[in-house]
Amino acid sequence: MTCSIANVLDALGDRWGMLIVRDLALGLRRYDDFRQSTGVTHATLSSRLKTLEDNGLIERRLYQSRPDRYEYHLTPRGKDIGVVLMALAQVGDVWNLAELDGPPLKFVDARTGHAVRLALVDAESGEPLASPDLRVEAGLGADDLMHWRLEKTRSRRGDAQ
Amino acid sequence: MTCSIANVLDALGDRWGMLIVRDLALGLRRYDDFRQSTGVTHATLSSRLKTLEDNGLIERRLYQSRPDRYEYHLTPRGKDIGVVLMALAQVGDVWNLAELDGPPLKFVDARTGHAVRLALVDAESGEPLASPDLRVEAGLGADDLMHWRLEKTRSRRGDAQ
Repeated sequence: MTCSIANVLDALGDRWGMLIVRDLALGLRRYDDFRQSTGVTHATLSSRLKTLEDNGLIERRLYQSRPDRYEYHLTPRGKDIGVVLMALAQVGDVWNLAELDGPPLKFVDARTGHAVRLALVDAESGEPLASPDLRVEAGLGADDLMHWRLEKTRSRRGDAQ
Repeated sequence: MTCSIANVLDALGDRWGMLIVRDLALGLRRYDDFRQSTGVTHATLSSRLKTLEDNGLIERRLYQSRPDRYEYHLTPRGKDIGVVLMALAQVGDVWNLAELDGPPLKFVDARTGHAVRLALVDAESGEPLASPDLRVEAGLGADDLMHWRLEKTRSRRGDAQ
């Protein structure tokens, strides 16, 4: 599969995988904590931890012997998911489906205490774009299916919205 | 549920829901196109389209009568998911699991043709942050469970990594 989006979704497994990575990013480490945080069943939690480990997003570390007990940590690859979690949080905060007085989580720069957010910037200069008119194009790694998707779109441009 | 991340994941349904929103963001509109793009089964596609419609992310529009045929479009809420798709693509491009020569998709500013990417900026000034030291805090909308997650983390700070 040559869609980067699909590849990351596959590595996460499903919604539960994403919520476990969220918990690890927040600093939770232990099996029982993931259970309490998400309400996930034993069977599903065990299966998703294995998926995340197999896909290189998390690693187990022994923290107690007799009986052996493990903690889970994000690998560098797992930490990469942080930007996806932030994007999800940013959208959810705007929707505010639970009609809260403010966001459940605040993302801040630890050095300044200032709130931070994700925004579109020029890839080369890093300069923020005020009101970007985003377009998607085929990249070097686009396969036939990706070209087909974009071609379908082009052929329909000009149709009534 | 007062986690913005979980709320957005719930609205999408699952991996298939996300891939359908990806296809709509790329400009695909029709049932058969989603089938060809994702390889999803009829039963799953029908079910996910209904989920996305029920959750206000997409809407059906009649484009032909006798027999009636519909196209699907992203609602403003569905378009909000764009930042999540971009974050997923950005991570997948870095991982490059398929070992491609370049990204399958390029995101560009239509006015300048320059590549754009997501980056962390100061929420107030909009200024880009060179190497932010990101911290997560409870926001106004944090419920007991979110406070518990963050408290667990704090109580473990100082432990060996």
